[in-house]
Amino acid sequence: MTIKPMEEQLRIIIRGTEEIINLAELKNKLSLQRPLIVKAGFDPSAPDIHLGHTVLLRKMKHFQALGHDVYFLIGDFTGRIGDPSGKSKIRPQLTSDEVKANAKTYKKQIFKILDKNKTKVVFNSKWCSVLGTEGIFDLASRYTVARMLERDDFLNRYKSKMPISILEFLYPLLQGYDSVVMKADIELGGTDQKFNLLVGRDMQRSFGQETQVIITMPILEGLDGVQKMSKSLGNYIGISENPDEMFGKIMSITDTLMWRYYELLTDIDYEKIKKDVGQGKQHPKDVKINLAKTIVSEYHGHELAEKAKHNFERVFAQKKLPGDMPEYCFDVESAPSAAVVSESLGMSRSEARRLIVQGAVFYDGIKVEDVNKIITFDPKGRVLKAGKRRFCKVFRRS
Amino acid sequence: MTIKPMEEQLRIIIRGTEEIINLAELKNKLSLQRPLIVKAGFDPSAPDIHLGHTVLLRKMKHFQALGHDVYFLIGDFTGRIGDPSGKSKIRPQLTSDEVKANAKTYKKQIFKILDKNKTKVVFNSKWCSVLGTEGIFDLASRYTVARMLERDDFLNRYKSKMPISILEFLYPLLQGYDSVVMKADIELGGTDQKFNLLVGRDMQRSFGQETQVIITMPILEGLDGVQKMSKSLGNYIGISENPDEMFGKIMSITDTLMWRYYELLTDIDYEKIKKDVGQGKQHPKDVKINLAKTIVSEYHGHELAEKAKHNFERVFAQKKLPGDMPEYCFDVESAPSAAVVSESLGMSRSEARRLIVQGAVFYDGIKVEDVNKIITFDPKGRVLKAGKRRFCKVFRRS
Repeated sequence: MTIKPMEEQLRIIIRGTEEIINLAELKNKLSLQRPLIVKAGFDPSAPDIHLGHTVLLRKMKHFQALGHDVYFLIGDFTGRIGDPSGKSKIRPQLTSDEVKANAKTYKKQIFKILDKNKTKVVFNSKWCSVLGTEGIFDLASRYTVARMLERDDFLNRYKSKMPISILEFLYPLLQGYDSVVMKADIELGGTDQKFNLLVGRDMQRSFGQETQVIITMPILEGLDGVQKMSKSLGNYIGISENPDEMFGKIMSITDTLMWRYYELLTDIDYEKIKKDVGQGKQHPKDVKINLAKTIVSEYHGHELAEKAKHNFERVFAQKKLPGDMPEYCFDVESAPSAAVVSESLGMSRSEARRLIVQGAVFYDGIKVEDVNKIITFDPKGRVLKAGKRRFCKVFRRS
Repeated sequence: MTIKPMEEQLRIIIRGTEEIINLAELKNKLSLQRPLIVKAGFDPSAPDIHLGHTVLLRKMKHFQALGHDVYFLIGDFTGRIGDPSGKSKIRPQLTSDEVKANAKTYKKQIFKILDKNKTKVVFNSKWCSVLGTEGIFDLASRYTVARMLERDDFLNRYKSKMPISILEFLYPLLQGYDSVVMKADIELGGTDQKFNLLVGRDMQRSFGQETQVIITMPILEGLDGVQKMSKSLGNYIGISENPDEMFGKIMSITDTLMWRYYELLTDIDYEKIKKDVGQGKQHPKDVKINLAKTIVSEYHGHELAEKAKHNFERVFAQKKLPGDMPEYCFDVESAPSAAVVSESLGMSRSEARRLIVQGAVFYDGIKVEDVNKIITFDPKGRVLKAGKRRFCKVFRRS
């Protein structure tokens, strides 16, 4: 493939980045007119990918599109230690089997974004497992305690007397050693990885190599617009979620967050659109629908994205029921409301109870007031609605 | 052998110690009425033993005499890292061959003090070299950075921005692991080893073992009475030095230091003697001669010690020449004084020159004033004297 001019490459690379250390080195590397070795490391212990992870994956995709060699590094060796970044506890070490299973799950997901044929998936156990004691000692002799304690997380924990195990000091050294072995030109990571990426530069220098350019990507805010998107906070959009769910979740974000998502989750040149909205030439809701359609298309294709848009507009804009409502058939004549909601809509009993208590559950158009309220089924089917976006037609087996 | 009563054992063990952590545990272990596992570790990088080292070796000897199992642990694995205790620089790693050669030299010397048949010489490479990466990670996960930085040396260096390599944090963990593997009941060491010995207790606790009692021995002052005895400071008495040299050096120490040496380098119950000297019942010089004779006897036997005493008294007390003066024969008629002193007395040319310049060299009773002064030899021999204790009868081959 032909290599794009420097300015064009830079425009694509810089979009959405938090920090580049440093731009002069990056320009120098790009001027070499050869495919650069681009590294991004992933912890095999958390392979359930959501849009927050795709900020980094999309940047890798950009490098692929520009003709560079992108390495998806699975830290299966370091994963057994557990990256301490921002964590105050040592993680339980994963077994070899768990690491393998997680790596497989990872691969299944990332190729929804990355080009499978252009992505080199590598495992750092390949070179780390042969380091041996001597190798670990050698790495440990190349870095000082003081530099390690410069890391914000470590320093804060040290000052506030929270334990830092000595094992945690070995993690960044190993991650840096990955860059040495891979002869990385560029390493990508989240802003929370900045310290580790810098150690990579130091280790390369210590081994007499040219240092990698590091590019950090911002941490994406979740649906609430405040906290980092994360599974445990429940403010996330998984890339395997169904089109309707994904579409609806994107439509629920604020207009401010919308521009952030445009920048980090699409390639659309949104500045013009933003200006139009500012001048009242476009309606924010239409722009948000366009965002949702773009993102859903990326994971489910154009057709399903159109359908999701259609369903969304029917339900919310026109206050109608979705056209393709799921159906659920009970074998009994009646059942308590919490059980009915939980079973037919596939949620936990506690979530069902919470929605009922919040007054968000309707059966046949009438609010269900009590978690113990007995619901009687109809062989012709009646509509059960829970929350804003969950519907089910409930039947009694006739 | 019969085990001595607790009080008798304690009296012997406690003599000369700096600190015992802790006495209650020690009593408890002694009450078990079984041979205790007593460990002392030695760095294979400095095998030239002087009286300073014998403070610890003599304490090991006491435990042997009391029927306990004494392990002389050669840290051939940890020696490759280099114990950072009190040092601000990383030592060059020793090669495997150097470690072996040094260990051999060690063994040759220690059995002048320890009972060869009762001493178990072990090498920590036996268990450390099979630890592997996983083993190192496991040890590193058992200790915190904060506890490591509690060590005075580390904290001082951290605060004064002197580098501490991360490798140095691994050393105490490995030394502690030695105690785990050996199931040590007691670990002996110099006061500069206190931190490492305490880590041994922590590591045993972490592995679910009963903790070792640690016993620290003071660091012996050298001949100057101020600085720690050390080869590099030149204030030492090597255990392989000849009887006359050893005797003379001991006689050169101050009366204050004499009591310290009595306590740490002999088993003599010197309190009574000290009292006698205080009351003028004994002359300090006689008491010092007794000390010198005792120490020289330990390394050269009673007969040579008596002879050294005799020589010392003739030369210094009676200002006469020693009875067994060495002789040296030159093939030429004459030579410059520095060369003569250097060759006949076996010292470096620069040392010879220094002594001449200091006015400490006499030939046939006349001071040699100049390093270039030509000395003419006599077939009947004439006495050459350099410094206080070095004599040689110099001949011209006839």
